[in-house]
Amino acid sequence: MNEGRLRDLLEGLLKGKISLEEGLERLKLLPFEEIEVACVDHHRSLRRGAPEIIFGEGKEVSDILAIMERIDGQDENILITRLSEDKAEEVLKRFPEAVYHERARALTYTPNETEDRGRGLILVVCAGTSDIPVAEEAAVTAQFMGNQVHRIYDVGVAGLHRLLSHRERLAEASVIIVVAGMEGALPSVVGGLVDKPIIAVPTSVGYGASFGGIAALLGMLNSCSSGVTVVNIDNGFGAGYAASLITRVKGG
Amino acid sequence: MNEGRLRDLLEGLLKGKISLEEGLERLKLLPFEEIEVACVDHHRSLRRGAPEIIFGEGKEVSDILAIMERIDGQDENILITRLSEDKAEEVLKRFPEAVYHERARALTYTPNETEDRGRGLILVVCAGTSDIPVAEEAAVTAQFMGNQVHRIYDVGVAGLHRLLSHRERLAEASVIIVVAGMEGALPSVVGGLVDKPIIAVPTSVGYGASFGGIAALLGMLNSCSSGVTVVNIDNGFGAGYAASLITRVKGG
Amino acid sequence: MNEGRLRDLLEGLLKGKISLEEGLERLKLLPFEEIEVACVDHHRSLRRGAPEIIFGEGKEVSDILAIMERIDGQDENILITRLSEDKAEEVLKRFPEAVYHERARALTYTPNETEDRGRGLILVVCAGTSDIPVAEEAAVTAQFMGNQVHRIYDVGVAGLHRLLSHRERLAEASVIIVVAGMEGALPSVVGGLVDKPIIAVPTSVGYGASFGGIAALLGMLNSCSSGVTVVNIDNGFGAGYAASLITRVKGG
Amino acid sequence: MNEGRLRDLLEGLLKGKISLEEGLERLKLLPFEEIEVACVDHHRSLRRGAPEIIFGEGKEVSDILAIMERIDGQDENILITRLSEDKAEEVLKRFPEAVYHERARALTYTPNETEDRGRGLILVVCAGTSDIPVAEEAAVTAQFMGNQVHRIYDVGVAGLHRLLSHRERLAEASVIIVVAGMEGALPSVVGGLVDKPIIAVPTSVGYGASFGGIAALLGMLNSCSSGVTVVNIDNGFGAGYAASLITRVKGG
Amino acid sequence: MNEGRLRDLLEGLLKGKISLEEGLERLKLLPFEEIEVACVDHHRSLRRGAPEIIFGEGKEVSDILAIMERIDGQDENILITRLSEDKAEEVLKRFPEAVYHERARALTYTPNETEDRGRGLILVVCAGTSDIPVAEEAAVTAQFMGNQVHRIYDVGVAGLHRLLSHRERLAEASVIIVVAGMEGALPSVVGGLVDKPIIAVPTSVGYGASFGGIAALLGMLNSCSSGVTVVNIDNGFGAGYAASLITRVKGG
Amino acid sequence: MNEGRLRDLLEGLLKGKISLEEGLERLKLLPFEEIEVACVDHHRSLRRGAPEIIFGEGKEVSDILAIMERIDGQDENILITRLSEDKAEEVLKRFPEAVYHERARALTYTPNETEDRGRGLILVVCAGTSDIPVAEEAAVTAQFMGNQVHRIYDVGVAGLHRLLSHRERLAEASVIIVVAGMEGALPSVVGGLVDKPIIAVPTSVGYGASFGGIAALLGMLNSCSSGVTVVNIDNGFGAGYAASLITRVKGG
Amino acid sequence: MNEGRLRDLLEGLLKGKISLEEGLERLKLLPFEEIEVACVDHHRSLRRGAPEIIFGEGKEVSDILAIMERIDGQDENILITRLSEDKAEEVLKRFPEAVYHERARALTYTPNETEDRGRGLILVVCAGTSDIPVAEEAAVTAQFMGNQVHRIYDVGVAGLHRLLSHRERLAEASVIIVVAGMEGALPSVVGGLVDKPIIAVPTSVGYGASFGGIAALLGMLNSCSSGVTVVNIDNGFGAGYAASLITRVKGG
Amino acid sequence: MNEGRLRDLLEGLLKGKISLEEGLERLKLLPFEEIEVACVDHHRSLRRGAPEIIFGEGKEVSDILAIMERIDGQDENILITRLSEDKAEEVLKRFPEAVYHERARALTYTPNETEDRGRGLILVVCAGTSDIPVAEEAAVTAQFMGNQVHRIYDVGVAGLHRLLSHRERLAEASVIIVVAGMEGALPSVVGGLVDKPIIAVPTSVGYGASFGGIAALLGMLNSCSSGVTVVNIDNGFGAGYAASLITRVKGG
Repeated sequence: MNEGRLRDLLEGLLKGKISLEEGLERLKLLPFEEIEVACVDHHRSLRRGAPEIIFGEGKEVSDILAIMERIDGQDENILITRLSEDKAEEVLKRFPEAVYHERARALTYTPNETEDRGRGLILVVCAGTSDIPVAEEAAVTAQFMGNQVHRIYDVGVAGLHRLLSHRERLAEASVIIVVAGMEGALPSVVGGLVDKPIIAVPTSVGYGASFGGIAALLGMLNSCSSGVTVVNIDNGFGAGYAASLITRVKGG
Repeated sequence: MNEGRLRDLLEGLLKGKISLEEGLERLKLLPFEEIEVACVDHHRSLRRGAPEIIFGEGKEVSDILAIMERIDGQDENILITRLSEDKAEEVLKRFPEAVYHERARALTYTPNETEDRGRGLILVVCAGTSDIPVAEEAAVTAQFMGNQVHRIYDVGVAGLHRLLSHRERLAEASVIIVVAGMEGALPSVVGGLVDKPIIAVPTSVGYGASFGGIAALLGMLNSCSSGVTVVNIDNGFGAGYAASLITRVKGG
Repeated sequence: MNEGRLRDLLEGLLKGKISLEEGLERLKLLPFEEIEVACVDHHRSLRRGAPEIIFGEGKEVSDILAIMERIDGQDENILITRLSEDKAEEVLKRFPEAVYHERARALTYTPNETEDRGRGLILVVCAGTSDIPVAEEAAVTAQFMGNQVHRIYDVGVAGLHRLLSHRERLAEASVIIVVAGMEGALPSVVGGLVDKPIIAVPTSVGYGASFGGIAALLGMLNSCSSGVTVVNIDNGFGAGYAASLITRVKGG
Repeated sequence: MNEGRLRDLLEGLLKGKISLEEGLERLKLLPFEEIEVACVDHHRSLRRGAPEIIFGEGKEVSDILAIMERIDGQDENILITRLSEDKAEEVLKRFPEAVYHERARALTYTPNETEDRGRGLILVVCAGTSDIPVAEEAAVTAQFMGNQVHRIYDVGVAGLHRLLSHRERLAEASVIIVVAGMEGALPSVVGGLVDKPIIAVPTSVGYGASFGGIAALLGMLNSCSSGVTVVNIDNGFGAGYAASLITRVKGG
Repeated sequence: MNEGRLRDLLEGLLKGKISLEEGLERLKLLPFEEIEVACVDHHRSLRRGAPEIIFGEGKEVSDILAIMERIDGQDENILITRLSEDKAEEVLKRFPEAVYHERARALTYTPNETEDRGRGLILVVCAGTSDIPVAEEAAVTAQFMGNQVHRIYDVGVAGLHRLLSHRERLAEASVIIVVAGMEGALPSVVGGLVDKPIIAVPTSVGYGASFGGIAALLGMLNSCSSGVTVVNIDNGFGAGYAASLITRVKGG
Repeated sequence: MNEGRLRDLLEGLLKGKISLEEGLERLKLLPFEEIEVACVDHHRSLRRGAPEIIFGEGKEVSDILAIMERIDGQDENILITRLSEDKAEEVLKRFPEAVYHERARALTYTPNETEDRGRGLILVVCAGTSDIPVAEEAAVTAQFMGNQVHRIYDVGVAGLHRLLSHRERLAEASVIIVVAGMEGALPSVVGGLVDKPIIAVPTSVGYGASFGGIAALLGMLNSCSSGVTVVNIDNGFGAGYAASLITRVKGG
Repeated sequence: MNEGRLRDLLEGLLKGKISLEEGLERLKLLPFEEIEVACVDHHRSLRRGAPEIIFGEGKEVSDILAIMERIDGQDENILITRLSEDKAEEVLKRFPEAVYHERARALTYTPNETEDRGRGLILVVCAGTSDIPVAEEAAVTAQFMGNQVHRIYDVGVAGLHRLLSHRERLAEASVIIVVAGMEGALPSVVGGLVDKPIIAVPTSVGYGASFGGIAALLGMLNSCSSGVTVVNIDNGFGAGYAASLITRVKGG
Repeated sequence: MNEGRLRDLLEGLLKGKISLEEGLERLKLLPFEEIEVACVDHHRSLRRGAPEIIFGEGKEVSDILAIMERIDGQDENILITRLSEDKAEEVLKRFPEAVYHERARALTYTPNETEDRGRGLILVVCAGTSDIPVAEEAAVTAQFMGNQVHRIYDVGVAGLHRLLSHRERLAEASVIIVVAGMEGALPSVVGGLVDKPIIAVPTSVGYGASFGGIAALLGMLNSCSSGVTVVNIDNGFGAGYAASLITRVKGG
């Protein structure tokens, strides 16, 4: 219940349009309604022209189209993650202006022009070519959220010189997303070079004792470099989203 | 090798003060020296009047005092984490102006006045009273790094109303650190209420199937709220440090 | 051996119809027979017109039909869980009055009218749309066991207001089944709102460090809300069955 | 904000005692206040003469006494779990009417006569003598919550006849709490004998591959007996509390 | 090198048929030859008319046929485990007298009549219908090794009476193999009823927290019944083989 | 209820000493009594002059003495495992004829002469000196159960020749217990040398990735030698007991 | 920046061809360039006529061909690991002189004659036939790196005599690679026979509690034989590569 | 049985000094004796003036002294690892010429001058000061085995420049031992800089999700740098020993 509605209610009461009992009844339901309203508002303020996000995995094309059509009238942009290529084709038939990002396996639909609401540059670094899909999911998410994004791919710790040659880009970035599988050492190394917030994304790339990303995850959680925080295995979206929140920090 | 020294070298060469061979020899060693210098400088720029950080666990009092004395002349502030009370007493005998934060098990020594270089407010939230030591480590770290810190303690998900009553503080914060043991659900709930960067800290609080913090860690990594990133179990320092980097994000 | 048969034996002995040795021989076998009888009776009392339950996974259609036909004459209702759609079609050809619950992947066949033997209302809550199959298995089981069932779906902790808006349904329920994957935080939140028995069902929904439901399972076992008990990952049936036993508690 | 206060506010508004703006301001804060009130009320309804529960582990005696003294005036009963004997002695000096349950490591303080609000009988079964402390924690909790409790101890599956000899007690119970370490098989066996809600409590009793209770926990989660739900390792309190909620199920 | 060959060598030396150097050379190679011979002999004594065992999984039909043909002239019986039905058909085309045991997924080829060299009765018990393939692998192995085998299937702990009704068979057996998935409680229960060597076989039957047989494995390792030993998950062959060794114990 | 008591009851009935109703009442309680009797008898037959076994860990000396005194009149032998030296001293004060086996941490009290009821020889092999306590627990148990026991200690796989030099003892044994920590490879090697039942006991000896015996346990479960079965980590008693059951196999 | 380029720069400066500022600018970028150059050089010295290594798994044929064509002009040899047979066929169409090693699933393309730069003999030992693919990957890698390689396959610890019969080959080798699945005991046994560096490779061969190679991995890490080091599960390439580095140790 | 003894035997036979039967009897025992001799010889050739190694942990001082005294006459050097300071003091009283290495927790006793039998330089690198004890164990072992050892301590990946400044030492070494806890990333980084055999030693240093060294272990096993092999957690001795074997590789 926003202030406007509350004022209406009280004025109605004062003007005798609604009885005390009726006002009481409506106010008794306030807490839950209000929270709902508050949350929706709060979300809405976030979402002006922006993020309606759909996790595509396991959803039928028909479900996805239904959600998109419901939102379509509301002038909101849409990001669908984990969307297979064949499903994306179906969606594109209906929404030809949407864009499918193949490597990121993500689709964006942006009827509203995205205003650049992030105020810094997000750099996405990844260790090996197999980590690129996760890195791209992070990059596409960050762009969709209104940020400028740079990419440095295929710079694992076994070839430090490649990473070091990008020193300027490291220095420019506001936040750095580091994506790595196997032993997950790259965030520590990057964290030793710069004093920026680093979001580390372990990937399930590897075999044997990589245990589907556990080795990388543990490596990152135990990073000896301060300033590294971690998201779930393969969670490129989460990293891109968190980085976007950071670039929007008010006094930051 | 900073620019000044490089210029000196080249000018000395041009002026004949040093021979071509000598110049060659000195330049051949440049890369490694230079990196060292670069890194130190880079660290130094960070450290003006600020963080020399010592992990106190497992260190002898004599080691700690030796490090502190070496730094003391350099006008730098010092933070020692994981310092037991009895060791702290020894340190305080030698550095009586230092302050021991008992609940955080941390000691700060700040001969330089800390300039407020963080530009937002960091909020530290924790779920239960047993999580307070980790929360305090995060809070003391963030303050030491020059940030303003608010605390909301003992607001677990089993008593949502306590958390909701602090809605204004949630809205004010630039970054929120959420500390929780057991099932680690609190960061998801906070993340559902606000659109801020949230750093989740699992604690080893609990018993049985909490497995020393694994349950909380997994809960946080799988958070259904976007924008949550995670640090190691009980790593209050890491959270405080990462939050400080976020409040300093340039364009952020 | 029930009392009737025992009395017959003793009277036969007294009347000389059976010899002492013969009586002795028959009584020596009593313990095992008796337990068998006791258990069967006990089961039977449970099953009057009710639950013959078949775990469908891995069973051939021919096996299932054989079991159903054997039971069919006995006026018992049948529930088959984890039955794929194509197998269900085969069963429906032979038992056209049976009902296949597609989302629950369960089939019910109820020649006996189910008397409402549960005496309260069971509420099934789930966190995300992907959790619905498990939630439906719980709901269909509870209904099959003679309970009234309400459903509140898609109310994860990241959107608390949706959950709070159902406050009346939470208040009405006798038992609440809460189904959630990922971090499994929902049961704790529900448990913080009401003082009802809560049966938490972790699901294998998620990826990466959700480890096929382990994260949710651990989260639920470590719930900070009292009154939460847990069943196996994806075990919707077990939750529905346990909830049914609770609504039938005599003095409860 | 309860109805009385809401009515006062509206009447004050109608009577001109408070201005529209002031009313608006106070109502804007309603949602959070209200939830707090609602929750407290809801808790209060639960707590008439009953459970204030304190987790004693890791708390100082002074903390415990402070909490107890704050509550003391409010006519509420108090249960302290995981309280070591030496701490208990300190508490008893100050509250001599309190009772320390040594085997359960729990202390109860019940200035209010506990009304029997549970409406059935709770049976606590345990497998071995080493499981007794956890079983007693469950039993003491259930009694404190106003239930009648029976105990059958030391009836492991390796001596089935001991369990079977208690068949009448099994039949009488409304809810059965089964406590077992090692392989945790007892709940399955009990669940095969009766159709009651069974709350299984794994204990950390055992060595080697019992892994501090994991073996028992997994055994219980995979129970082949329907109707078994599980709580955390060694969580006797949780089992006793959940069982108490079950015996209070309204229509149950 | 058996005694005969050694004697020949020494006699040849004494008779001058072989020179000292030649004898020396041949004796220098003795240790390794001898061990080889010893082992082969030792194996051979075991194998008179019996077990050549082939692990079929992952082997091509051509490999299997090659091994069988090489052995065929040597009058030995052959057991192939983990052989899929389609591979078995290929083998049967070439060895039509072989027998394929479908449920056990094993093939036996016994040109030599198996003498009953086991001197007791091996009983194979399993908990659920899904455990039958593993139980059958154990049973077929034990029969192939020359033992008499009884089977009691589908007698889980949730229906104790079914197990108890087989009390005579339990009493007759020399060794009992107990096969169970899920919580793996059956061996403990059987071990509580009889004082026989029990070989427990965990199966990968189950879902969720059964973790592919880990729950059953841990349950069995932590059995509270003495006399229970355990083999690998799904290792029916290993159980059948070990049981066969037990029935052949000399003074046993 | 043994045959004698049953006959008395029926004769009393026939002679009119007890009424039909009274007989009925007493027989109704038979099943459970009978099982109890049966089990006790069955245990008793096992226990003639033999195993009352007490797990000493965690028991108070007073508890142990109470059990021993209760048994003392019944002419039974007693084995107490996991008994610390200081507790043993207390027990020996009261039962000076008892024997404390220091390395095995076990106490035996054998007022009845143990008849040699095992009919073979049990060989206990261990890999390193640190494994000796577990090996001794196995050996003392097997001796207490009436078996002849040989020991071969400190013969790890890294020094195969030491093991091979005991070839005769390997050949004589009926059952071989192999105790090993670290990688647990010894049972496989022994199993490759002889065709005897081998009971493998993993120990918690080791550090780092031995994970308290898990490495050894897994190694033994995956043994490539057939005929190896496994007990819990450090469970020397279980191995000794199971070996004793094997040497008593009737037709074995 | 190698010495030549540095000298040019300084001479140009002295000769006035480049200004002081320009020299300064170029030198400021030295560190990163230099490291890059150093690393590339260092790699190049390694690669004269040798290892360009491509991890084939997950790469498209087109990607692989692109890399090969780029390298082709540079006179370097190429090794592609984890290449499926059908992809290999595509590669062979374009590079018919390449060789596909079917069992190793590796392809080698060696336009430069490999000089024998390894100075010893590498022996590859494996336990079972299922371990051969991993063993072959190690062997092919070692050969590609310019080493002589011997193979001893199918010599598990359950048949020690087979291993012992190869005593001469064990004695000749410089480094021994031991490949084993299941319990992974073979490296310990080999390590007990010879004093050579042993590289142990666990394989994912096995089932049940082998957990995809974890049992073998732990067994090898806990090896009681000194001198054993371990690589990742199934990492035949890593073992072959490390062994090659060892045979090239200078003063070794 | 060496050639000399064999020749004596055969000549004695030819000369009639020993009978054919006696010769036969002695030769029958050859295989096992011979292996023992072979192994001892083989060890002896290794041990000329060198390594008798004793694992000190868990051994009594009296045991250690007994072993040392037995060896003392044989002119062999002795290394005792994992020896606490107080035990070392006892040993030094009896063997005052021995040396206790405090940080390594190792004692060396070298009556024979160690000839430099390793032919290269072993470099020991460690990440943090807490890793030094393990690094020192490796270094002391390598020195004891006759190698020259260099140390570079406290060069974690978070401060790459410190590592890079030691580039010459990296280039000189024959083998590099890299010791690291936490995320264990250092071996990958070192492996990216040089093409030497690298032995990685994970340490149990860290907290929370380092899980006592598992994170470091997994990181090292998944190293993206080829040529890295791994030993057990905290196994400095194993790394030092394996490195020593590598520097002794013949043709290497």
